[in-house]
Amino acid sequence: MKLKERVLISVMAGLVMLTMIVVLEAETSLTAPSRTRTPAHARVHYAFRQRHLQKTSNASREASLSAAASAQVGVVSDDSAPPPPPAPGALAGAGADSGREKRTGTPATPPDSFSDLAEAALKASNNSKVVRRRNHWNPCLGELLGLELRDNSTLWDKFHLSISRDELYAAEDPTVDRLLRHVATAPITHIALKEGGTQLKLLIEFADGGHALFKPMRFPREQQTLKNHFYFTDFERHNAEIAAFHLDRLLGFRRAVPIVGRVVNMTRELYAFAQGELLKTFFISPDGNLCFHGKCSYYCDTAHAICGNPDLLEGSFSVYLPGKEVAPRRVWRHPWRRSYHKRRKAQWEVDGDYCQLVQEVHPYTDGRRLLDMADMAVLDFLMGNMDRHHYETFKMFGNNSAPIHLDHGRGFGRAFHDELSILAPLRQCCVIRLSTLASLLRYHSGPAPLSAALRSSLSADPLSPVLWEPHLHALDRRLGLVLREVRHCLRKARDPSRVIVEDFH
Amino acid sequence: MKLKERVLISVMAGLVMLTMIVVLEAETSLTAPSRTRTPAHARVHYAFRQRHLQKTSNASREASLSAAASAQVGVVSDDSAPPPPPAPGALAGAGADSGREKRTGTPATPPDSFSDLAEAALKASNNSKVVRRRNHWNPCLGELLGLELRDNSTLWDKFHLSISRDELYAAEDPTVDRLLRHVATAPITHIALKEGGTQLKLLIEFADGGHALFKPMRFPREQQTLKNHFYFTDFERHNAEIAAFHLDRLLGFRRAVPIVGRVVNMTRELYAFAQGELLKTFFISPDGNLCFHGKCSYYCDTAHAICGNPDLLEGSFSVYLPGKEVAPRRVWRHPWRRSYHKRRKAQWEVDGDYCQLVQEVHPYTDGRRLLDMADMAVLDFLMGNMDRHHYETFKMFGNNSAPIHLDHGRGFGRAFHDELSILAPLRQCCVIRLSTLASLLRYHSGPAPLSAALRSSLSADPLSPVLWEPHLHALDRRLGLVLREVRHCLRKARDPSRVIVEDFH
Repeated sequence: MKLKERVLISVMAGLVMLTMIVVLEAETSLTAPSRTRTPAHARVHYAFRQRHLQKTSNASREASLSAAASAQVGVVSDDSAPPPPPAPGALAGAGADSGREKRTGTPATPPDSFSDLAEAALKASNNSKVVRRRNHWNPCLGELLGLELRDNSTLWDKFHLSISRDELYAAEDPTVDRLLRHVATAPITHIALKEGGTQLKLLIEFADGGHALFKPMRFPREQQTLKNHFYFTDFERHNAEIAAFHLDRLLGFRRAVPIVGRVVNMTRELYAFAQGELLKTFFISPDGNLCFHGKCSYYCDTAHAICGNPDLLEGSFSVYLPGKEVAPRRVWRHPWRRSYHKRRKAQWEVDGDYCQLVQEVHPYTDGRRLLDMADMAVLDFLMGNMDRHHYETFKMFGNNSAPIHLDHGRGFGRAFHDELSILAPLRQCCVIRLSTLASLLRYHSGPAPLSAALRSSLSADPLSPVLWEPHLHALDRRLGLVLREVRHCLRKARDPSRVIVEDFH
Repeated sequence: MKLKERVLISVMAGLVMLTMIVVLEAETSLTAPSRTRTPAHARVHYAFRQRHLQKTSNASREASLSAAASAQVGVVSDDSAPPPPPAPGALAGAGADSGREKRTGTPATPPDSFSDLAEAALKASNNSKVVRRRNHWNPCLGELLGLELRDNSTLWDKFHLSISRDELYAAEDPTVDRLLRHVATAPITHIALKEGGTQLKLLIEFADGGHALFKPMRFPREQQTLKNHFYFTDFERHNAEIAAFHLDRLLGFRRAVPIVGRVVNMTRELYAFAQGELLKTFFISPDGNLCFHGKCSYYCDTAHAICGNPDLLEGSFSVYLPGKEVAPRRVWRHPWRRSYHKRRKAQWEVDGDYCQLVQEVHPYTDGRRLLDMADMAVLDFLMGNMDRHHYETFKMFGNNSAPIHLDHGRGFGRAFHDELSILAPLRQCCVIRLSTLASLLRYHSGPAPLSAALRSSLSADPLSPVLWEPHLHALDRRLGLVLREVRHCLRKARDPSRVIVEDFH
């Protein structure tokens, strides 16, 4: 082949890809997909279904983790059994063996344009049946509750009543940004310990009656997850919560609860409103800073106190969703959740056919939920979040509604390590939403890489810079790794049209 | 005064001081001192005596700390009472107010030769009645137990039986160094969790039947006490234990238990011998390191595990004293111990006349014990150890015996801060042993400052360099501060001969 021809082919391939991205972007019609179906050969695993995928209540969540894990995984059958004797030379290997993946850098070869994926996405888009989005049933809470928004409705009402089955807020709705600006400055009138979590959280009430969940800063931005800490002993990071909300929005999910950063004056805005058990935990540290530690199951003691400088404290403010009495939620155990035990693996870590089991169980048999798991895996992998044990949905939207992306305090912990096991739902089920793939391809090939987009988005937060730069760089590297997983799926799939799927979302 | 005269006087002062040091060094005869006496006006404070100075058993030591503190100090009368509302501007001040002292650097003025102290020490030495040291009753354990050393006695027996009333080992005895070299390499045959302490310790048994207490490394040398941590939440440092032993020896006390550093192979030397509850706490961390956390009241969980690299672990090995069945010990509550509570002060922190109370109570009424408290204060101040809550003595030596310097894991935590409150026994009682002062003056004026002497001494340890350089530099700075305290005492004393005291030690 002559040089001229080669150049011509390259240019054409590039044009095809660009065209495809533009088409996907502009597309308002969506398609009835040929979805992943329950394999004909599958048997129903009742025990599995009961143990793994049952809904659980929010309470006693953590307590049930180990017990359930011990029942399911045969790796170490009994808590009292000692670990297998480690061979001194094999220690590093033993770590890698336990689901850990080595750091993967950008390859030295020229950047991959993933034009094959772009073509496949285009094909998936063309194949699917065009359905006008306006025919898609996507009610919002206001409609279902019979409550209408008025011009003088509060920002809180506007946000709450506009939450729809498919997303927490619409792409073009300015309410969320307005609400976040409000939360960043609104007068605080009441605080209380948030019960039920493992690490310290405060329930904040504002003068206008709105509520937010406060997670305090513990460490500077550049402190990473301690190298010998597990995902379940990692400290929560307030800035990870903020960054995760922005990342979820940039990826087009809009399923993460809106979160904003704010510096509070601990004396006037926390101590002044603290009462009872919480009040008793305030003290002045040897360095002259105001500190408190609250009450919770992990890290709530004098040795792990939250301290101001001397009484100024950063934190994340997560906007409260509508009260559970108004819009009750369902809590689902995540099928790919980890063992939450330092010597055990979850079943999905040892069973290559795990996805088949999942696909036999409601609500993963049909509908959107398996695609949602893949989306969540992409979001979590990009930020390195291994702590996705449960998720929630609004009951009134039924089972075919979007999951809510909650609790990302353990994301953005290790900037130089890519935890490929987080991608298990994508890798094992080999399905991804067309819109998600398009979004990833756009960041990969477009003028603004994901890192730049997130940096820009986060610059609006009061705590900017929210993320340590290496975490931003990691996003672009990991995005390429997600695309490689999709390519791998396409190559091994008997029917590639089952890999890239467009559903009604 | 002319320049010539000034120079002459300076030279003479220097000569006087040098002579005095030489005299003290060479002196083998000791003096019957005019000791601090119970003030005639003193009343007997039974309640005080009972609460503060009673002997306590080793067990439930920590548990009793807060309770006793709450009973004694009226600063905050009830645990449930909230702290006083901190004023935002006054926070730093509030910290300083709670016994904290600001960093004190070496003054810009020319170095102080402390020739006045040297003169006072010389005078104290001349005033005292000369008694031949051989007439001084200083039995060793072997004598009291009726056990004689033989040529083939083990190093353990040689060390144990040579422990005398005045010191754990003699200055010229080579046994301790031999024993430490042995402990640094002797085969380990058994390990067990050491009960009763707050932080993780292992009881190590060697092939020859000897025992040591193992404290593992947690952090690199340069990590200091976390700024918002109290003395009672500070992590223990294995290297502080080692350095404290060397420092105690350099100061001529020889009351600290011999300690040596050693790198253990966790797999072959710990894991292989671990059993029961201890064994269950071993695991491989996400970074592929072998870890364990043991069981104890603080920092014994997965989040605070001790981890090797990948299974090599540094630790301090503290030589066991003779078993309590052979040589029982008495545990004394330290009169100047702190409150061990984040919002309370001990009585000595608020009562300027506290020493008078102490001097009314046995064994501080007469004998050596008050001088021992001053010595301990000097040792602790030099290394910044605020965690001196109890001390022990061998029962068979009676009450006029040397206290044992134990448990220095919380020394050497803050290299740039000098905690003057540690000197309270010296400051409030204004007594110091002549030999201690001479030792301090020698390091201050001699060719080798204390930092150099300790650096040199520690270079023999297998874990050399044991201390981060700033901790060594701090020693010289703090030594000057001790001498200033003594000068302050001499200046305000009605009878300076009661300040610098030579006793039978």
